[in-house]
Amino acid sequence: MSELDRVLARIDADLDHSVDRLFQYLRIKSISTDPAFRQDCRAAAEHLAGDLRSVGFAAEVRPTAGHPVVLAKSNGAGRRVLFYGHYDVQPVDPLDLWETPPFEPRVAALADGRKAIVARGACDDKGQVMTFVEACRAWKAVTGSLPLAITMLIEGEEECGSKNLPPFVSAAKDELGAEIALVCDTGMWDPATPAITTSLRGLVYDEVRITAANRDLHSGLFGGAAQNPIRVLTRVLAALHDDNGRVTLPGFYDGVRELPADVKAQWSALNLTPASFLGPVGLSLPAGEKGRSVIEQISSRPTCDVNGIVGGYTGEGSKTVIPSQASAKISFRLVSGQDPDKIRAAFRAFVRERVPADCRAEFVDHTVAPALALDWSMPQLASARRALTEEWGKDAVLIGSGGSIPICADFKRLLGMDTLLIGFGLDDDRVHSPNEKYDLTSFHKGTRSWARVLAALAA
Amino acid sequence: MSELDRVLARIDADLDHSVDRLFQYLRIKSISTDPAFRQDCRAAAEHLAGDLRSVGFAAEVRPTAGHPVVLAKSNGAGRRVLFYGHYDVQPVDPLDLWETPPFEPRVAALADGRKAIVARGACDDKGQVMTFVEACRAWKAVTGSLPLAITMLIEGEEECGSKNLPPFVSAAKDELGAEIALVCDTGMWDPATPAITTSLRGLVYDEVRITAANRDLHSGLFGGAAQNPIRVLTRVLAALHDDNGRVTLPGFYDGVRELPADVKAQWSALNLTPASFLGPVGLSLPAGEKGRSVIEQISSRPTCDVNGIVGGYTGEGSKTVIPSQASAKISFRLVSGQDPDKIRAAFRAFVRERVPADCRAEFVDHTVAPALALDWSMPQLASARRALTEEWGKDAVLIGSGGSIPICADFKRLLGMDTLLIGFGLDDDRVHSPNEKYDLTSFHKGTRSWARVLAALAA
Repeated sequence: MSELDRVLARIDADLDHSVDRLFQYLRIKSISTDPAFRQDCRAAAEHLAGDLRSVGFAAEVRPTAGHPVVLAKSNGAGRRVLFYGHYDVQPVDPLDLWETPPFEPRVAALADGRKAIVARGACDDKGQVMTFVEACRAWKAVTGSLPLAITMLIEGEEECGSKNLPPFVSAAKDELGAEIALVCDTGMWDPATPAITTSLRGLVYDEVRITAANRDLHSGLFGGAAQNPIRVLTRVLAALHDDNGRVTLPGFYDGVRELPADVKAQWSALNLTPASFLGPVGLSLPAGEKGRSVIEQISSRPTCDVNGIVGGYTGEGSKTVIPSQASAKISFRLVSGQDPDKIRAAFRAFVRERVPADCRAEFVDHTVAPALALDWSMPQLASARRALTEEWGKDAVLIGSGGSIPICADFKRLLGMDTLLIGFGLDDDRVHSPNEKYDLTSFHKGTRSWARVLAALAA
Repeated sequence: MSELDRVLARIDADLDHSVDRLFQYLRIKSISTDPAFRQDCRAAAEHLAGDLRSVGFAAEVRPTAGHPVVLAKSNGAGRRVLFYGHYDVQPVDPLDLWETPPFEPRVAALADGRKAIVARGACDDKGQVMTFVEACRAWKAVTGSLPLAITMLIEGEEECGSKNLPPFVSAAKDELGAEIALVCDTGMWDPATPAITTSLRGLVYDEVRITAANRDLHSGLFGGAAQNPIRVLTRVLAALHDDNGRVTLPGFYDGVRELPADVKAQWSALNLTPASFLGPVGLSLPAGEKGRSVIEQISSRPTCDVNGIVGGYTGEGSKTVIPSQASAKISFRLVSGQDPDKIRAAFRAFVRERVPADCRAEFVDHTVAPALALDWSMPQLASARRALTEEWGKDAVLIGSGGSIPICADFKRLLGMDTLLIGFGLDDDRVHSPNEKYDLTSFHKGTRSWARVLAALAA
């Protein structure tokens, strides 16, 4: 029996204890966005640091301007990886939609027979982080050491913008050196197919407010002569896409590359159809660029969405008002090669060109984060992929995520480090929603997967 | 001294008492839309009926399915006019913006030296109705009778849609016969220039809700493939106007007539410029049809405005959501010759054509009212105009109002009666807003004006 096989056997034998340890962690109400839970956030950090010490890490709870960061290092002078995750969780409202209290974890049987851990944070990100911690624990228990040196950086503000993390990383630069970053905060392709996320879309999120008259006007008296800011705004927003679903901002597609033929072939084999992807949410017609497959539309192509719009009277019944102001929140998902600052500037120019001279446009900048794309020829990627394929008995697929994890860009920028995103979440995990869950299989085989990946990266 | 001169002298001498009587009426909190004020509405009706009896009318408070109607008739078998007004008022919120309590009327000095009665209803419509009542009182006091027979119909639901009035008018048809209807619920051209409103725009007010996915989606995961109802809605709304400010609904301008040359000349002489009309509200560029003057844009041309729009996340900060639904409230101001039912149907077809097959559009009908235009050659119009010109020492202008008073269309439809709209409101009266006021001059010379108009109509 190889070392790895003994580690995997240990994980299997210890599963009940692993679940118990996760349950202890899940009971801590570490809601980062709500100041009422500040002590709970600290308690989660202390709990995790203590647990990491029991696995042999030198672990500290380090202060930031917000919630503290857990920084833990195993000894060892050889190859080193940096694992990133977060101990904070989303708020739990609406509480009345939870079938059981969000901080009283339980194992539930799903309708199709799957078993799942139900609690706030069960998947995002406590359960996912614990797959990595339990893999380390098993290695340590069986062999007395880890297969390679590991630094862990677990923050407490991921769910409220991570604004104190980049300064922390910058200041602690010398302590964070490693050959690659590992993150467990993404998903599988489906319950049977493991995945490595090799690209993350970037994000430009802007808010625009159009002001026309200096007060609300009566549409009977002013209608026809006074400019209506909703009219100005809807004309701007409607002009953002052409009839083929392409974004019309000048220069928007500059730097966007076509997929390599082999990736395109692999994605095509995944057979994601409009019916399979959109059917479950009640839609059938892909709304993105014509001539692009659904998987391209959601992962390798940049997009534009209006996330919110409001102006005038929105209550019951009718009111004949021409409002003074109207506003919208607009986000652009970016892919590798696009310059987020240039796109924000192009958007603002696009709006200003379309605003009449007697009206004005004001902007609020919410997010500017570049996209991230891993080099597909990276040797660690190939190693990790083989390890996952062995565990799941099915080829691990390389996918692009439509979402954004801005810290990965900071790792690249501040530490010169690429990030390997491996996660075991599933589409039905209800992350950020009531009754969040994490399949017991995700937790168990996720832990086994990390045990294999660590061995593969050490080889 | 002629009879009329004696009546005018009596009005001047009695002004303080007239103001006192108006104050008593203004103290009654007849807010029709709020059920908490039901008894106050009844009290306002009873108060007015009692006051009309003191002027010699046979006045009754008649029930409807909602608030009661005051129906009062003077005796006399000759020529008869029907005066319409309303005793109900708008709600008073936001209460903290009132400088003094809304139902404690007072006379205030404005910054430019004008004196004004300040209270909810001071202008709309208690003050305006009382100009007519006080004119009748003066005629009765001086001559013992009215110059012509008068029926008064004062309703209590104008501020909440008048939905019980058309059935009341229909049922009381035989009691409402008259040669013309008079309404005092409109404005002057400016503080020195009296006006008769000879056209009212009609109104089609519709609400549309677009539904795309069956739940809110994460824009990172679904953006690019899932249709966004805000995108659908903004494309529909942006398409409602062309670059020349014209409404693009097929058939929208069918039946719209050009102004007669003499009217156009008269309006042109009023010299309403973009600067004079739009400047006070902070605008300078007319937004209506290119090639049309401001006064045409606001009174003789049909328009389209979005009065409200909402969809997605509209709170502080950002949320990367693709909402399931987005909705808007849209109103069309119509002019004589347009068919409101046809326009509502054209709007709905216009929307449906632009909604993708996997999304849906639903509509809520708020208002459908045709426009109204008076025959400019009507002899009563000429008589009233001369009377006003004599009182104010300045030609009374004939104007179109952009607003809508649906009951006038019902008078035409149910009673075959035209309506003469004469009012003394000013642009700065803050009708429907905190600190509503009515200039003391509007009240005093408005009363004198009605005394003259009644004499002129009787001649």
